[in-house]
Amino acid sequence: MSSNSFGKIFTFTTWGESHGKAIGCVVDGVPSKIPLKEIDIQLFLNKRKPGQSKYTSQRKEEDKVEILSGTFEGLTTGHPISLIINNDDQRSKDYSEIKNIFRPGHADYTYWKKYGIHDYRGGGRSSARETAMRVAAGAIARKVIINKINDNVNISGALVQIGKHKINYNNWDSSFINKNDFFCPDKNILSTWEKAILETRKNGSSLGAVIELRCNGIVAGLGEPIYEKLDSDLARAMMSINAVKGVEIGSGFESVSAKGEDNVDEMRIENGKPKFLSNHSGGIIGGISSGQEIVVRFCVKPTSSILTSRKTINKNMQEVLISTKGRHDPCVGIRAVPVGEAMMAITLADHSLRFI
Amino acid sequence: MSSNSFGKIFTFTTWGESHGKAIGCVVDGVPSKIPLKEIDIQLFLNKRKPGQSKYTSQRKEEDKVEILSGTFEGLTTGHPISLIINNDDQRSKDYSEIKNIFRPGHADYTYWKKYGIHDYRGGGRSSARETAMRVAAGAIARKVIINKINDNVNISGALVQIGKHKINYNNWDSSFINKNDFFCPDKNILSTWEKAILETRKNGSSLGAVIELRCNGIVAGLGEPIYEKLDSDLARAMMSINAVKGVEIGSGFESVSAKGEDNVDEMRIENGKPKFLSNHSGGIIGGISSGQEIVVRFCVKPTSSILTSRKTINKNMQEVLISTKGRHDPCVGIRAVPVGEAMMAITLADHSLRFI
Amino acid sequence: MSSNSFGKIFTFTTWGESHGKAIGCVVDGVPSKIPLKEIDIQLFLNKRKPGQSKYTSQRKEEDKVEILSGTFEGLTTGHPISLIINNDDQRSKDYSEIKNIFRPGHADYTYWKKYGIHDYRGGGRSSARETAMRVAAGAIARKVIINKINDNVNISGALVQIGKHKINYNNWDSSFINKNDFFCPDKNILSTWEKAILETRKNGSSLGAVIELRCNGIVAGLGEPIYEKLDSDLARAMMSINAVKGVEIGSGFESVSAKGEDNVDEMRIENGKPKFLSNHSGGIIGGISSGQEIVVRFCVKPTSSILTSRKTINKNMQEVLISTKGRHDPCVGIRAVPVGEAMMAITLADHSLRFI
Amino acid sequence: MSSNSFGKIFTFTTWGESHGKAIGCVVDGVPSKIPLKEIDIQLFLNKRKPGQSKYTSQRKEEDKVEILSGTFEGLTTGHPISLIINNDDQRSKDYSEIKNIFRPGHADYTYWKKYGIHDYRGGGRSSARETAMRVAAGAIARKVIINKINDNVNISGALVQIGKHKINYNNWDSSFINKNDFFCPDKNILSTWEKAILETRKNGSSLGAVIELRCNGIVAGLGEPIYEKLDSDLARAMMSINAVKGVEIGSGFESVSAKGEDNVDEMRIENGKPKFLSNHSGGIIGGISSGQEIVVRFCVKPTSSILTSRKTINKNMQEVLISTKGRHDPCVGIRAVPVGEAMMAITLADHSLRFI
Repeated sequence: MSSNSFGKIFTFTTWGESHGKAIGCVVDGVPSKIPLKEIDIQLFLNKRKPGQSKYTSQRKEEDKVEILSGTFEGLTTGHPISLIINNDDQRSKDYSEIKNIFRPGHADYTYWKKYGIHDYRGGGRSSARETAMRVAAGAIARKVIINKINDNVNISGALVQIGKHKINYNNWDSSFINKNDFFCPDKNILSTWEKAILETRKNGSSLGAVIELRCNGIVAGLGEPIYEKLDSDLARAMMSINAVKGVEIGSGFESVSAKGEDNVDEMRIENGKPKFLSNHSGGIIGGISSGQEIVVRFCVKPTSSILTSRKTINKNMQEVLISTKGRHDPCVGIRAVPVGEAMMAITLADHSLRFI
Repeated sequence: MSSNSFGKIFTFTTWGESHGKAIGCVVDGVPSKIPLKEIDIQLFLNKRKPGQSKYTSQRKEEDKVEILSGTFEGLTTGHPISLIINNDDQRSKDYSEIKNIFRPGHADYTYWKKYGIHDYRGGGRSSARETAMRVAAGAIARKVIINKINDNVNISGALVQIGKHKINYNNWDSSFINKNDFFCPDKNILSTWEKAILETRKNGSSLGAVIELRCNGIVAGLGEPIYEKLDSDLARAMMSINAVKGVEIGSGFESVSAKGEDNVDEMRIENGKPKFLSNHSGGIIGGISSGQEIVVRFCVKPTSSILTSRKTINKNMQEVLISTKGRHDPCVGIRAVPVGEAMMAITLADHSLRFI
Repeated sequence: MSSNSFGKIFTFTTWGESHGKAIGCVVDGVPSKIPLKEIDIQLFLNKRKPGQSKYTSQRKEEDKVEILSGTFEGLTTGHPISLIINNDDQRSKDYSEIKNIFRPGHADYTYWKKYGIHDYRGGGRSSARETAMRVAAGAIARKVIINKINDNVNISGALVQIGKHKINYNNWDSSFINKNDFFCPDKNILSTWEKAILETRKNGSSLGAVIELRCNGIVAGLGEPIYEKLDSDLARAMMSINAVKGVEIGSGFESVSAKGEDNVDEMRIENGKPKFLSNHSGGIIGGISSGQEIVVRFCVKPTSSILTSRKTINKNMQEVLISTKGRHDPCVGIRAVPVGEAMMAITLADHSLRFI
Repeated sequence: MSSNSFGKIFTFTTWGESHGKAIGCVVDGVPSKIPLKEIDIQLFLNKRKPGQSKYTSQRKEEDKVEILSGTFEGLTTGHPISLIINNDDQRSKDYSEIKNIFRPGHADYTYWKKYGIHDYRGGGRSSARETAMRVAAGAIARKVIINKINDNVNISGALVQIGKHKINYNNWDSSFINKNDFFCPDKNILSTWEKAILETRKNGSSLGAVIELRCNGIVAGLGEPIYEKLDSDLARAMMSINAVKGVEIGSGFESVSAKGEDNVDEMRIENGKPKFLSNHSGGIIGGISSGQEIVVRFCVKPTSSILTSRKTINKNMQEVLISTKGRHDPCVGIRAVPVGEAMMAITLADHSLRFI
């Protein structure tokens, strides 16, 4: 199986470099007769697109997706869906200065050690541009879940921390998330975040972030012990996103300091149905969904593309200094929200299709 | 591919229930002509075995492993290695009281929802007893790495937090880890941990833990972008261990509050070779090893097997109370150390064998 | 994935050498709550067992199977089913004469080239003894098909050619197949076969055979284009059996000499349902079942274990002569019938479980 | 894993419908730094292209391939190679007549039963047009073998039977194969084949064919027992090609009538090296290459696209008659030669890359 593929039944394979001709993916395992048009995918891509607010990179990317196969008269056919986005913003920039330098914190050095060749233009294959295709595949995954599994399933992500500034969970307002430039659920923290980002941009620095994903409407019983646990697969999915360094489920690392009796999610009967009195487990026990809300958090490190000069080396084993020139994204974690949502949708669609 | 299997080239498949006749696994993808005897595996199993100190469960398990296939005259043959451990401690206990009750925090309810049938004796397939086979497979993975890849590779785990009590990293003493009952690297915290565990045991409660795994000697260039990144696979591996709720690589969640310029691992040349000035990345950049120490942390929730009475329901949708009787492990995280080491060895062996 | 595994959803992994302690397999992907006892498996194993008639090897093998996991109170649990057969007939024979010789026609030389080590006792891992576990897994596959898919499915194999002697298809009598020592459907050819086999045995020679498998009751729509076609997977399954050198579906190689208009399976309506007027396709078109009888044939070469002396070489690159001593099977194709049936059942179960 | 994918290490995934916007594939697992240009692929595509002689379909397809990713400055990068061919010959034909009819012998009915929707234009996904992408992937596989494994490896296919007319193996002339319109190795049979094809075309009928593939230069030791045997994987590969109904290795079905002592490939020493005295095994024993020439044969049924009227049914369960109009290929087996070669190259490349 290709290491550029994800999934067992609902699968996708991505291809393409940041500054190549195009990027794309092949989505397979999609049941037939699901309505699917390009606009269904485009809506989610637009959410991820850079250059939309003053808090993210000013780089302009049209990111216009085209469906090349797998649909017929507006419906999926059960055959592979090929998606392509042409790379419009492919300026013939001068790379002579950086082509031999390993940008610290980027994959330049490790790719070089592994492959002995590296498309240095914009990070090539290691660029976060690849995540556009995850978002596209995620849009199809949502269609699968809604049409074939349960039309009540709702997957949504939010930013819960930028730098040192965490939200207050008591202020959580879901309806607010898509009404601000940060996917922020807490009105009160907004101005703090704005100030932090603008200052960070001014300093040419960057900040990390924590994203929280929630999914409602998944029935109990989804997931496969022992090595395809729902939480294992979610952890793998999130950790595969560029710059992610940590993942947790439910109470996660906080549960370490809790006592066993406080961390247990007790159960009662309500209207004849099982009801949990808390959700420390994040909706997954023993690798299988419990029917509660699924809760996943992941962190994104501060990007290494910064204006401050940093020490590094080049391919000739010489010591040099480097700083990023031009367009700069002070907190890449913001744009990771739709990517995280997509990976959650894909993981759930994949598990749903093998649930018999 | 079986959901009870792990790995792409170096693979293993586990089977068996906590109170069935036996547990076992089949390890495949092992190159031929590696010296392998039962004692090589037994040594690691002994490290995980319960009943070894007053800080873990008093349950006695012989956990004596037998090699049934795949070796000939003391050497591996390249064919599947079948391992088996008979379940000695299979007392004909009376389960009538719990057989219809979903123990909260355990997989009883989710397994029931998924399968409609559940071997309730000791948790059946969802028991942490399964992890014995991971340790066994891990012992073989170490043999593969040492014999076929690099005999300088060293994988070791340590406990860095119990409940609220974190170690002081400045006190880290590797040589101390295997000289105490906690796999603790910090002499100074030992008495605090002892007191906490004994008190927790007395109260019939439980505590969570954080385990840190380190691997030295892995060359730069190991790992496969995009969806088989070394860190993705490590995250998946750790999250598949019973009771694990979070995973992080290198600086992990701490990197969120750092500034970009501080979180970058700068590079210099030392004796003609690349040298990193820090290791926030935990030895993995862009999913590929950098040649630095690989650092992974994962957390284990406080076990739900506690003596305190908790609210739950039974299969007849009635509300009941339950508490664990008998043998009880105040901090299952301690025994998770050898399991985490094994999963790291397995993941690294698997990636090493596809490294060409 | 292990190269000793087969299947995507219904999977099994075999292990063990001909003269090791035991052979076994792990069957996974079996839905829960299917009644399963050892006797259900044993019945099929008995059909394959040597030493049952004067036409097959006189080697005695008890081949008593034991279920070690995956069932509870007589029902499958959805977890891996571990099966084991102890190797009783493991006589401490003297192998000094053959241990350094590559038996021609056997895998001794190729295994040696690949692994540099070889368990020479009875062929080790390359022995047809491995096929016992296929038969065991096949028994479980049948249970899955009957309990979860369609209880009208019937899979049965027959021998249609021994040496030059083909059956006459006009004499096909299904009820006769299990009433003779050859799985022969044609009463009239029986004495010819008996004579041929006894003469071949007397001469210390061997004969090839063709096996035909048929499956009724599979609905239209099973199979996955393009690279997991039902016929591709059946071809792979059959070709993986020891000594098999050819596979065909439906009219197979005979269709080459037919004209297009004669080879087409025309369709009509009968009682409101589609009906095919012929079955040249063998029940599979475009890789997907048509609802007709599925027909597969495969050939088994004459075994190379013969009493005639043959030229070969040894590990010291010296020229030697070799002949098989002792127990000898004049036509291994006979015992391949239950093995082929098992592989067909496994392939169909695997495809059935992903049919949604 | 996608059912439109093939391979474990060297993998490819195809997409696209006969009359969609384009067809394409993603090839992954290709080592870095292999020289690769579009022309390297185009040369093989040209060999398969229809409309090249009066013996194949007159349909014109440009089949011009474009590389969209995975190469940099003329070298592979180790990342997925995306290939695309735009469908030029996508005429806005009137399909109203056939859109509701199941063409007998084609996948129309089975796809309908499986998916409930079918792109009827030119067969949609089930069209042999998909095989163009196999040829493209095969060209890359050859590059991998030659650059990374052994530059002496030579893979070539030939037609050995059309209808009833088999070649005489004594006349085999490798140099003649690419000098005629049939990939025919036997000069003497050419006029018989020409006459047969022209007559068949005139009658609106079709003929089947047998293709023989040979590969020289593969060392001993390639292949993985038990379920990823080299011959199992080759059988699966060939059987996945449109219209293929049978596969055999080495002496194949002929070995059935041979005696054991005659079918064994005896061994001697020549110039200090092992030498086989015959090659009944077709270069594979126990699923592993022996170092001899690898020989595979597969048969292609006479195409069902014929001008003769045939009985069938439509989606309304009505009986109708149908005949193919327009462009017609009397023997699709001819164009299957480069496709078979490609699948052999892919299978060997995939196994070569896991050979350590």
